[in-house]
Amino acid sequence: MKYIVIDTLGSDQGPKTILDGVKEVLDSNFEIGFVIVGDPKLIEEYQFPKDRIKVVEAYETVTNMDNPVEAFYKKDKVSIFLALKEASENEDTLGVISSGSTGALMVGSIKYLLDDKKTRPALAAILPTIDKGACTCVVDTGASIDVGPHQLVEFAHLGSDFMRKLYKIESPKVGLLSVGSEPTKGNKLVKETYPLLEQEEGINFVGNIEGSKALDHLCDVLVCDGFAGNQVLKVTQGVASNLIKEMVKYGYTSGKVDEAKALAGHLMSLYDFESSGAAIMLGVKKTVLKCRGSSGAKAIIAASKILINLNDNRTYFETVFDD
Amino acid sequence: MKYIVIDTLGSDQGPKTILDGVKEVLDSNFEIGFVIVGDPKLIEEYQFPKDRIKVVEAYETVTNMDNPVEAFYKKDKVSIFLALKEASENEDTLGVISSGSTGALMVGSIKYLLDDKKTRPALAAILPTIDKGACTCVVDTGASIDVGPHQLVEFAHLGSDFMRKLYKIESPKVGLLSVGSEPTKGNKLVKETYPLLEQEEGINFVGNIEGSKALDHLCDVLVCDGFAGNQVLKVTQGVASNLIKEMVKYGYTSGKVDEAKALAGHLMSLYDFESSGAAIMLGVKKTVLKCRGSSGAKAIIAASKILINLNDNRTYFETVFDD
Repeated sequence: MKYIVIDTLGSDQGPKTILDGVKEVLDSNFEIGFVIVGDPKLIEEYQFPKDRIKVVEAYETVTNMDNPVEAFYKKDKVSIFLALKEASENEDTLGVISSGSTGALMVGSIKYLLDDKKTRPALAAILPTIDKGACTCVVDTGASIDVGPHQLVEFAHLGSDFMRKLYKIESPKVGLLSVGSEPTKGNKLVKETYPLLEQEEGINFVGNIEGSKALDHLCDVLVCDGFAGNQVLKVTQGVASNLIKEMVKYGYTSGKVDEAKALAGHLMSLYDFESSGAAIMLGVKKTVLKCRGSSGAKAIIAASKILINLNDNRTYFETVFDD
Repeated sequence: MKYIVIDTLGSDQGPKTILDGVKEVLDSNFEIGFVIVGDPKLIEEYQFPKDRIKVVEAYETVTNMDNPVEAFYKKDKVSIFLALKEASENEDTLGVISSGSTGALMVGSIKYLLDDKKTRPALAAILPTIDKGACTCVVDTGASIDVGPHQLVEFAHLGSDFMRKLYKIESPKVGLLSVGSEPTKGNKLVKETYPLLEQEEGINFVGNIEGSKALDHLCDVLVCDGFAGNQVLKVTQGVASNLIKEMVKYGYTSGKVDEAKALAGHLMSLYDFESSGAAIMLGVKKTVLKCRGSSGAKAIIAASKILINLNDNRTYFETVFDD
């Protein structure tokens, strides 16, 4: 049996919603087990089938106010670090799911799971595009904030490998996030990276992509530093959420509540960042999925699906559960 | 009579749509004139009232492929440079409107209109927020790409002054774009800028703002380097446009075309970047408005309105034309 390692302590919604997600996955897929990291007393209450779970005791988290490196050396029983350690030591694990601090996930991944050939892991997000069903992998979205051109080239490889594997795209198109499509546009980092990507073997470079076209599916992999990529990811989330709220409000004032709600529901299904899954740590030995801090059961189910599909060599779109 | 200097050659839609906008402004507001920079033969065709216009002959543009500094020294009769020169030399001008290259606008503004106390101009965008009617001024959005912490502090002052003037906000709240709201979050630039903004006199600093909350009206001025700010601006435009297209498409497939179009129309009125006006060059002696390259008459009318309101000490929301 293969196991998913799950950190139950990172979500703002508390551990129960995470354990609800675990229960649903266990009930729908009988070939998978979980290593559950968290409070054993609470986990006990769920009466999971004993032969399909293993419990790792943990009570502590790393908050956004902690220094994650300090926390790694000073804090014991931190769920996120114990989860990553388990993934590195236990061969039967598929990967790790956590909603905890990105910094801690990064530090723990470097300590336990770093792929020796890579200098740093990157956090990729899979964003929906205007092409129905087609996604763009934005890398990095916040794990590696201050980087140089060679790291961006590495992100291009990590993203390409990932899109080849999960979406079966033979030669993923790689775009470079910039302030204009012309090769002369960009900040110092982008201008230095452009010629490197042009020359790089194994990379299908399509040039600079502006933010306004980030989700137009001009590329399968959008390369950027973690600060800029974080803006692409979060501005997308913020604008989609504001527009959807505005629609529902307009529905109430115009008396077309049902129509507005139906439309809002449709858009939410396209731009739903909870069920469209987690951010994915690339460049590490096991798959590490970072769900949003506000994640609930739905995000855990979506993330589990990605891990199971990747392991079974199925693409993202093939379902593993009866949805 | 006060004059608006208008560059007719920068729009992708050609000079006629710009001249259509000029005609509409001249017809609706009798106290304003135009210095029209472009092809005199074409301008002649419009038979504008002779006492309210002045024509400056120009035939050349700076494209996105040109180096704007080289263009400044080598090209003659470039409309964007002649427009800025006219604004610097003619006291009766309110400011400049152009849809041309941002780089050229920047170079020309530095040469002709630089405010001596400022090191560099900045390009601000006024974005709609979830608070109906309330806007956030994002500065910089692409004029100053590679900057240091002291320039970000200057952007905070430029944005605050502008919001005080155009929106009559006494003590504008200033946020710093980052990857998390905590003071410890950010890239090197943001981490160095944070303590400077905290200490800066005359700045009402409210801390870091994440991209997902950029349009939640947590601040009146959102400070960032031009690369990151360009992403905030353009990702907002791209996501809003994609969502609105998706709504209309859904309307057709679900048979609720009219309802979907009404909703799309409402959202477009909120997130319409053409009529919500241009980006504004701050830190220069005259107001310089940069419309999008795809701008038509509507954008010219909106930009003229901003110039007239600023001059008359009216706020943005008071209309000057019968809309």
